[in-house]
Amino acid sequence: MIATLTDFGVTGPYTGQMHAAILQHSEQSRVVDLISDLPRFTPELSAYLIPRLTDPFPVATVFVCVVDPGVGGSRQPLMVEADGKWYVGPDNGLLALVVRRASQCRICSITWRPKVLSNSFHGRDLFAPVAAKIAADESVQGNSLTNTQIMGCGLADDLSKIIYIDGFGNLITGMRAAAVDETSVIVLKNQRINAGLIFSECPPGESFWYANSMGLIEIAVNRGSARDHFDARLGDPIKIIEDL
Amino acid sequence: MIATLTDFGVTGPYTGQMHAAILQHSEQSRVVDLISDLPRFTPELSAYLIPRLTDPFPVATVFVCVVDPGVGGSRQPLMVEADGKWYVGPDNGLLALVVRRASQCRICSITWRPKVLSNSFHGRDLFAPVAAKIAADESVQGNSLTNTQIMGCGLADDLSKIIYIDGFGNLITGMRAAAVDETSVIVLKNQRINAGLIFSECPPGESFWYANSMGLIEIAVNRGSARDHFDARLGDPIKIIEDL
Amino acid sequence: MIATLTDFGVTGPYTGQMHAAILQHSEQSRVVDLISDLPRFTPELSAYLIPRLTDPFPVATVFVCVVDPGVGGSRQPLMVEADGKWYVGPDNGLLALVVRRASQCRICSITWRPKVLSNSFHGRDLFAPVAAKIAADESVQGNSLTNTQIMGCGLADDLSKIIYIDGFGNLITGMRAAAVDETSVIVLKNQRINAGLIFSECPPGESFWYANSMGLIEIAVNRGSARDHFDARLGDPIKIIEDL
Repeated sequence: MIATLTDFGVTGPYTGQMHAAILQHSEQSRVVDLISDLPRFTPELSAYLIPRLTDPFPVATVFVCVVDPGVGGSRQPLMVEADGKWYVGPDNGLLALVVRRASQCRICSITWRPKVLSNSFHGRDLFAPVAAKIAADESVQGNSLTNTQIMGCGLADDLSKIIYIDGFGNLITGMRAAAVDETSVIVLKNQRINAGLIFSECPPGESFWYANSMGLIEIAVNRGSARDHFDARLGDPIKIIEDL
Repeated sequence: MIATLTDFGVTGPYTGQMHAAILQHSEQSRVVDLISDLPRFTPELSAYLIPRLTDPFPVATVFVCVVDPGVGGSRQPLMVEADGKWYVGPDNGLLALVVRRASQCRICSITWRPKVLSNSFHGRDLFAPVAAKIAADESVQGNSLTNTQIMGCGLADDLSKIIYIDGFGNLITGMRAAAVDETSVIVLKNQRINAGLIFSECPPGESFWYANSMGLIEIAVNRGSARDHFDARLGDPIKIIEDL
Repeated sequence: MIATLTDFGVTGPYTGQMHAAILQHSEQSRVVDLISDLPRFTPELSAYLIPRLTDPFPVATVFVCVVDPGVGGSRQPLMVEADGKWYVGPDNGLLALVVRRASQCRICSITWRPKVLSNSFHGRDLFAPVAAKIAADESVQGNSLTNTQIMGCGLADDLSKIIYIDGFGNLITGMRAAAVDETSVIVLKNQRINAGLIFSECPPGESFWYANSMGLIEIAVNRGSARDHFDARLGDPIKIIEDL
């Protein structure tokens, strides 16, 4: 299976073009468009989302990850094998946490180039065909890199910021829930938020935090929008207060 | 074929995650993402849309229907076989009209549970794998229910309200067109609307009602938005006046 | 492979219904939803985008193209074979540039009709099944037409207007880049725009034009929205000034 994770947005032809580029290489591929609204221009936020999104997928899945503001410039294209799954994308920090959290990891800068390579859309021209090649067990030319040679290798283990806001207005943070005590209080914009377990058990309109379905700490409002409730934005910091 | 019908919205990873959960179970499945913007928090509106959306599909199609504000609480998961098609979703009224309109119908509450079940995303964790199992002719554990044991069993045959507003601003009602005379006048917000047959035959900017491609009464404005024209919202009531 | 190009928007069931109509005819079809936000009600703008979007696809691909404000009226449905690729859609100018630019081209008005044909959704009822038939090498009844018998046969080779605005706010014009000198200046709303080659080499917030990944002239702002920067709209004219 090949899955696409991009910041292309839901409109426009870009996801479809990438999808088609994969099918052109091997028409029997299964392609899932996993997410197309990763935060733009900020690969360091998506870096914390990608490992959680890809975690439930089976070994041998290939993920094409494209948040690529430096496209056409000097940034390298990467392919990463992490615990049996493959990741293809730009070397701009986007794959840094995938690498960090893998037990076993091989990293290559991709030296293969397609016959035609645009300056603005390596997702279609380079990353998609490389993903299709990997999925078809074909070799792809590259140069080995160590973990410390990629961008973002110094990023922290977790990020106490809002890294994604979903269509319901839920605020997803870069903090793994397993590391946080359930009695903790989260502070966002000077407001204290208590833990809740289940949406339907919180009074409508009231905010709570919980371990979301990706295992990240998420701030939500039952039948409402936490984004509107807190006037929150991507990158807003949170604080975690252990309840003593 | 498996089709998804949800209120997840077009952004975010949720539709893709459900899609992937199906492919993980049986990689040869055909999955169509039929609709991802069913009205939120109001399964009783979607209840009238779902039978019309699924009607043209062939026997043996499996529909995963997720509008699930009660996720993680006490509501039961359902599977329904209605005239040879399968429906999987929460017991909150969402499938009530599917059951009502079927000639032959079997209903079960699903007792099978996955190894890992989140509190907030049964679409991915429970409904998608159950749909994949049904599509693969595997048995799924459940308890039989009668028609009167499910939520929404008392809902009316048709609903004289706006149940969906599409991206063109067309207002779809819960009234089946076959039951309404073509000379009838529809009243929305104190404005009388006459029947029209064909978009291009109505003057641009003028409103009309017609039997839409799903067989429901729809209020439209040629080359314009009926939503804006009437300042209409989901749930707004309509009145049908038989022209004597 | 079958690809869909429509103005249905990203919400609603319409793309999914068309997708399903194709799979119902031949469940092994590969369907890519290439673009669902072609400009509405203006097939003459999409006419310049479609050949560039479909150019990279392999021979034998079938494109279902639906921008169809005249649906249900007297406009004919068309099928076009252009240099080995197939196009299905309404005869309203939408396919005019595909025909114009083909080396070899056969055009037919489609006379086949499905058993049930709605007045408002020929994409699902007629164009999708015809595309599935063509992809499955089945014959489709039709009447041959010459190039000059279709709508839009008099359209210019290029269109010096904004024909599409993508989700990043980039302004795509109907001018093929190959025909324009790289030292040219483009004027939009009385503002002069110079050529740039690569997004990341332009200062953030500054506008430039470049040959986009479809080979069309596009006006962009690095890490910003050219639409907002110029307050631009679909159909806005541009001027090209050769730098002497």
